[in-house]
Amino acid sequence: MKLYDTELTSALLLGTAQYLSPAILCEAIRASGCEVITVSLRREATDGAGTQFWDMLRETGMRVLPNTAGCHSAQEAVTTARMAREVFGTDWIKLEVIGHADTLQPDVFALVEAAGALARDGFKVFPYTTDDLIVGERLLEAGCEVLMPWGAPIGSGQGLRNPDALRAMRAHFPTVPLIVDAGVGRPSDAAQAMELGMDGVLLNTAVAKAGDPVGMARAMALAVQAGRAGHLADPMERRDMAVPSTPVLGLAELM
Amino acid sequence: MKLYDTELTSALLLGTAQYLSPAILCEAIRASGCEVITVSLRREATDGAGTQFWDMLRETGMRVLPNTAGCHSAQEAVTTARMAREVFGTDWIKLEVIGHADTLQPDVFALVEAAGALARDGFKVFPYTTDDLIVGERLLEAGCEVLMPWGAPIGSGQGLRNPDALRAMRAHFPTVPLIVDAGVGRPSDAAQAMELGMDGVLLNTAVAKAGDPVGMARAMALAVQAGRAGHLADPMERRDMAVPSTPVLGLAELM
Amino acid sequence: MKLYDTELTSALLLGTAQYLSPAILCEAIRASGCEVITVSLRREATDGAGTQFWDMLRETGMRVLPNTAGCHSAQEAVTTARMAREVFGTDWIKLEVIGHADTLQPDVFALVEAAGALARDGFKVFPYTTDDLIVGERLLEAGCEVLMPWGAPIGSGQGLRNPDALRAMRAHFPTVPLIVDAGVGRPSDAAQAMELGMDGVLLNTAVAKAGDPVGMARAMALAVQAGRAGHLADPMERRDMAVPSTPVLGLAELM
Amino acid sequence: MKLYDTELTSALLLGTAQYLSPAILCEAIRASGCEVITVSLRREATDGAGTQFWDMLRETGMRVLPNTAGCHSAQEAVTTARMAREVFGTDWIKLEVIGHADTLQPDVFALVEAAGALARDGFKVFPYTTDDLIVGERLLEAGCEVLMPWGAPIGSGQGLRNPDALRAMRAHFPTVPLIVDAGVGRPSDAAQAMELGMDGVLLNTAVAKAGDPVGMARAMALAVQAGRAGHLADPMERRDMAVPSTPVLGLAELM
Repeated sequence: MKLYDTELTSALLLGTAQYLSPAILCEAIRASGCEVITVSLRREATDGAGTQFWDMLRETGMRVLPNTAGCHSAQEAVTTARMAREVFGTDWIKLEVIGHADTLQPDVFALVEAAGALARDGFKVFPYTTDDLIVGERLLEAGCEVLMPWGAPIGSGQGLRNPDALRAMRAHFPTVPLIVDAGVGRPSDAAQAMELGMDGVLLNTAVAKAGDPVGMARAMALAVQAGRAGHLADPMERRDMAVPSTPVLGLAELM
Repeated sequence: MKLYDTELTSALLLGTAQYLSPAILCEAIRASGCEVITVSLRREATDGAGTQFWDMLRETGMRVLPNTAGCHSAQEAVTTARMAREVFGTDWIKLEVIGHADTLQPDVFALVEAAGALARDGFKVFPYTTDDLIVGERLLEAGCEVLMPWGAPIGSGQGLRNPDALRAMRAHFPTVPLIVDAGVGRPSDAAQAMELGMDGVLLNTAVAKAGDPVGMARAMALAVQAGRAGHLADPMERRDMAVPSTPVLGLAELM
Repeated sequence: MKLYDTELTSALLLGTAQYLSPAILCEAIRASGCEVITVSLRREATDGAGTQFWDMLRETGMRVLPNTAGCHSAQEAVTTARMAREVFGTDWIKLEVIGHADTLQPDVFALVEAAGALARDGFKVFPYTTDDLIVGERLLEAGCEVLMPWGAPIGSGQGLRNPDALRAMRAHFPTVPLIVDAGVGRPSDAAQAMELGMDGVLLNTAVAKAGDPVGMARAMALAVQAGRAGHLADPMERRDMAVPSTPVLGLAELM
Repeated sequence: MKLYDTELTSALLLGTAQYLSPAILCEAIRASGCEVITVSLRREATDGAGTQFWDMLRETGMRVLPNTAGCHSAQEAVTTARMAREVFGTDWIKLEVIGHADTLQPDVFALVEAAGALARDGFKVFPYTTDDLIVGERLLEAGCEVLMPWGAPIGSGQGLRNPDALRAMRAHFPTVPLIVDAGVGRPSDAAQAMELGMDGVLLNTAVAKAGDPVGMARAMALAVQAGRAGHLADPMERRDMAVPSTPVLGLAELM
């Protein structure tokens, strides 16, 4: 898929939060085959481990997609994005403007406002949004060239709560890169997203909080490939009536 | 997984019916990475193409699992199995005793009866069954060492209609090889089956009736690997309450 | 619906277990509008409260459907049924032969055997069964004139785990009274069962374990009526594409 | 429930579009037991039947909730609302601002804008919205005192596509009247909405397009009562593990 100016081979994007150790994170990144990782910048944090962490991430050679996680207003997100551009040396920004502390759902009003401000400022904006078609339209009008609808609340691992809405989104935006961001918990969720025609999947908790994060990263890599291949192979229609699926071999010919 | 005396690497088993051409079938078999294919023997069929078809299948080098598709009684299934043993030179038999013409569901009574007769006759029986725990117990008592519960009616592509029942089956038979047979329509279905802890997936229509059977065979191969890896990696719990999934990086350290 | 020789107005049948007090049970029975209650006979129990309990139930004037809950073999179920006939003075028997202690699923083999024995002995058998079509056929052959498929494991309140299987059952047995027995947790579950064309719903835990059992009994009574009326009214088809649903009133005429 | 200044007994609100005849509509209204009906005003329509239709509706004695169906911008909706106030003599307005012609989903941006304008103009606004919490907050800030989230696209009859989102809405707005508007297809859908704690259900197509609209209106009336009663009765928890649900009666006491 092409995200702005960049052609990517892998459809998987990986978040870098919540891992037990930076070493496990780096191994998971490699196992996932991803080319893009998201990293958070939070002004309030000063826990001393940041520089080393960042150095390790840089050594993976991954493209960094900084995010504005934890921001609750357009202004805060814009400010954070600008700092992230300085820190990470990229004009890519995953724009999160959280509207609700429990569900971590986007505030779509602030999101559109911030997206416009950042696009005008030269950012390549990756908006974390809902599956609302009209919000998607506004984000495109604001200058976004990719949309990242949620599958379920961040960190919930519930899978795709509303596949029909994602299907409608695919139909409505046939040429816009769509990346399911948040909610994926298992490989089958990731495969399903790709089967719906999504271009990619961004996940974090499902890998970080698995018993074996590296194994799960590998599983997710396979799952997005499986779902993508399945989508391209044009699946059979689901049928209400069962039909026989075994061939008829003539015994005479066989013996 | 170990099926009777045979250790297999791939968790995918492929049916050979309904393909547009034997060439496409053979290519799909190779793309699927499977090691076992099912082949049907039907006494009434004498369409002349059987020998060539069988020769082609033999050249793939796959292990053949003959089935008793189309049989509606224990006696018919036993007779068909014995002919299949002669024809295909193997004591493996996928035992199907169809109880209902529309849903192609197993007749569990005839199934248990036929399984016992065949096991006593030296067959290694692979019974196509429902997700009924008690039926499973009877089949094991009858001498089966593997169970093949359906996911949905044969050829329906509906996916797993009752995942909880399959989960109960896994819990109840922790050491018996379980292969979901029938119902899988998409890669995400196959991945889900493996995430439930199934040992394998047997499918046919989903590949044969895809727009691109070879591509779908490849997709299914990836999907079972993804689901298996996901199962082994111990997935996160699904959570009702969303929690933040992004790390806290200290700005001071980052800059 | 007509169950054997008896025409019933209410489609709800109520179990009598697990209530906090007999008084609450009796009030719930009245609120449910049911005409049939199930009562269990367990030989091992001798807790002293039985006679009074039974007297209270008799005063409700409900038809009693004794059950063989807790029986794990055909022989045990047959013996229990005969005792129940003496105790409760009825040839109706809800036949439960439990095959698995955790899921309380029927042992379909023992069930068919016991059903035949009881029918030959003059019982009117109400078999608690799975949604397996072939098992249903065997039960009818054994002399049953009603089938009671489960919706989900007893006491789980999971609702209908496999609606498609119940739909197939309805299609396959168009004239046999079908009563969903076990699994219903909420009024919407009961309504859904009736919308699928079921003739009745038998439930217990959903009422007994609700915070307000009497209120829930009333809710279930309304739900089965709602579902039945909905089924008879021939519901709209579910549509993938949304269409406008508001009328066009001419302003000129309106003003 | 209390909607603005009005206490209602019935939780069902009925749309008046798409009926085969005004007579059937009026009979369905009576069968539904509703107290509020929605009526559309469309400027472009001048089909001559409007006056009579409106007279018939008036004779039902129902409270009228005019809607702005078919409006695609805030300005158009505001203008339509003002005309509706004149025509129908009420300051109640069901505010629809359609954002997408196929899914008929709300344009949440225009919706909030129009809601504010109408509230400032003295309207009591009933906004047809999505299940987005943040949009809900904006609508309340704009002066709405009730929210009407969709269950699924208008006219689709798909039921509740995202029950978790409605549950979150209930939790987030514990004291705001919430009415599911659009998507309900069957009585069990309506019951489910009420079980989630919704205060009401507004539907149209499910009744108008049923084979027997009057029968379906009655079914829906029962269903909302069933769901409401079920919600108030505090349903049991759904359980993974099945537990026995039958009582233990001592034989000695019984005989």
